[in-house]
Amino acid sequence: MSIPVKALQKTGPDAPFEVKIIERRDPRADDVVIDIKAAGICHSDIHTIRNEWGEAHFPLTVGHEIAGVVSAVGTGVTKWKVGDRVGVGCMVNSCGECEQCVAGFENYCLRGNVGTYNSDDVDGSITQGGYAEKVVVNERFLCSIPEEIDFAVAAPLLCAGITSYSPIARWNVKEGDKVAVMGLGGLGHMGVQIAAAKGADVTVLSRSLRKAELAKELGAARTLATADDSFFEEHAGEFDFILNTISASIPVNKYLGLLKPQGVMAVVGLPPEQQSVGFGNLISGSKVLTGSNIGGIRETQEMLDFCAQHGLGAMIETIGINDVDAAYDRVVAGDVQFRVVIDTASFAEAEAV
Amino acid sequence: MSIPVKALQKTGPDAPFEVKIIERRDPRADDVVIDIKAAGICHSDIHTIRNEWGEAHFPLTVGHEIAGVVSAVGTGVTKWKVGDRVGVGCMVNSCGECEQCVAGFENYCLRGNVGTYNSDDVDGSITQGGYAEKVVVNERFLCSIPEEIDFAVAAPLLCAGITSYSPIARWNVKEGDKVAVMGLGGLGHMGVQIAAAKGADVTVLSRSLRKAELAKELGAARTLATADDSFFEEHAGEFDFILNTISASIPVNKYLGLLKPQGVMAVVGLPPEQQSVGFGNLISGSKVLTGSNIGGIRETQEMLDFCAQHGLGAMIETIGINDVDAAYDRVVAGDVQFRVVIDTASFAEAEAV
Repeated sequence: MSIPVKALQKTGPDAPFEVKIIERRDPRADDVVIDIKAAGICHSDIHTIRNEWGEAHFPLTVGHEIAGVVSAVGTGVTKWKVGDRVGVGCMVNSCGECEQCVAGFENYCLRGNVGTYNSDDVDGSITQGGYAEKVVVNERFLCSIPEEIDFAVAAPLLCAGITSYSPIARWNVKEGDKVAVMGLGGLGHMGVQIAAAKGADVTVLSRSLRKAELAKELGAARTLATADDSFFEEHAGEFDFILNTISASIPVNKYLGLLKPQGVMAVVGLPPEQQSVGFGNLISGSKVLTGSNIGGIRETQEMLDFCAQHGLGAMIETIGINDVDAAYDRVVAGDVQFRVVIDTASFAEAEAV
Repeated sequence: MSIPVKALQKTGPDAPFEVKIIERRDPRADDVVIDIKAAGICHSDIHTIRNEWGEAHFPLTVGHEIAGVVSAVGTGVTKWKVGDRVGVGCMVNSCGECEQCVAGFENYCLRGNVGTYNSDDVDGSITQGGYAEKVVVNERFLCSIPEEIDFAVAAPLLCAGITSYSPIARWNVKEGDKVAVMGLGGLGHMGVQIAAAKGADVTVLSRSLRKAELAKELGAARTLATADDSFFEEHAGEFDFILNTISASIPVNKYLGLLKPQGVMAVVGLPPEQQSVGFGNLISGSKVLTGSNIGGIRETQEMLDFCAQHGLGAMIETIGINDVDAAYDRVVAGDVQFRVVIDTASFAEAEAV
């Protein structure tokens, strides 16, 4: 037995999305069935399904920014009930037993967690993501979406939100800290809001001042153009914390020079090339260069509650299921402010092919 | 007025050391005069006075691992009295007012601290180091040497000791942590002792097993040879903390692979070349790559007290003032276990030229 649901599927990297019927498993004792209301489009979805990160398992449904309502629960589930507003991010399972899982960092599970799509699930199937009517997920991997946050606004928080929140929380960004956010895209626009809500003095670093007004709306005190020749000298030693959301190569040593002694640069954007780092730039001033990969479930709940408390959310535009191919091209072109979210209500009128 | 003292001086990078009379300033109100008992030879001394780090100010006396006894104090000094056993490390002054100095990190003074030798002092003179009979130092830059530690054993703690101690303390290495120390020289042999005394399970990483017995004596549980092909796979994800004391290029990504999620690699050895770092190796597992440069005065005192409490000290050989040129060549050749210390009593019989 299984649950047939409509989903957006690609049969190959160059195929268009089509509405197909896919099968969700009947809920096990510890599973929750979610009626999906909104699914965010993450750049990772695009990289994966276009085979830019290796060969994907086709046919495939992607999507790991999922917001919806509980429609059924397994016999052993006590934490969730029908009608609960819930979210699912990039993971749908982990061992639950290693020191990382026990400490709440399922994202760093020593045995490897199960990704929300294109991953080997514990039953040997390949996981299918959130561009669909429903999803069935182990109860440990749900978060509660506070009433204050709309589903479409909440969806991107499950990936873009937590990816920015986790390093800001780990490195204890606090009131009065000087924080720089490199890049103002899906991740950066959440990083600015979160750091500003923590009380930090936030500067957006961007090649140009093109997005300065938007940055201000999000809570940044200022935007600085890094293309100016004198930029790195003028702002040497200025920042306690830099969140680097850029997925391209950067002059790492110059950016380390912007940090105060003992300052931290946390990287959440992944350039394909190796980066050059002079150890002297880490030794002198005891700078920290680190990275971060999404966040644990407990931390994700903390982030959602923090966003609700401070009135934060992703700045989004909503599309129907027929506009996803076009939206992908716009995301790749950087022509989106800042996240596109699929309103899954549009599945209702669609015929599966 | 000033104080004439015998000192080992070079007039140029290729000149031999000669005993000369140099002038120490009369103590200002906040100064302390120290009769030097022992002065350690640090590789930095050699780099500096051989012009390997740029042109030094000749004639020059080096030495920043200084242990001795207070022989006079300025009119305003209350913390120290004649007869106190004291040490001086790599710094002899700093602004005392910036946020780093106020927080006890004079080593990261925002205005730049004054190095113990070859540095511009606040009065415009060039500082002269510890290969001498006496030194005059601002009272804020002295540490108390506990009775349990001999002067010759204490001297290298003021540089090699604190350089290893500071990152181990900052990153809270504690009982049961798996710690790797890369390289077993002056810094590494202190890092092993300190981490082991903190209760960590310490592994020395070295190209060969040549120093395995010595490592065990210092408190390491084992030595592993990194030259073995399978080394990096076999020990993937094993360590909480890696102290890298090697001054040559390393395959950074491979070493990051040895860390557990959220593990830390602290660099205290400075390779001249840029190092290649794949940001994916920092993001996946949220690894930390950082550096550290000596330590603050408060932290240095803490280190000396920790060493006394745990019976730690530098493993040394002692030489007279006539053997320093030869010792330099042996240090460069790596033919020293682990630190050479000049017994300054040998100045008594020397004639200044």
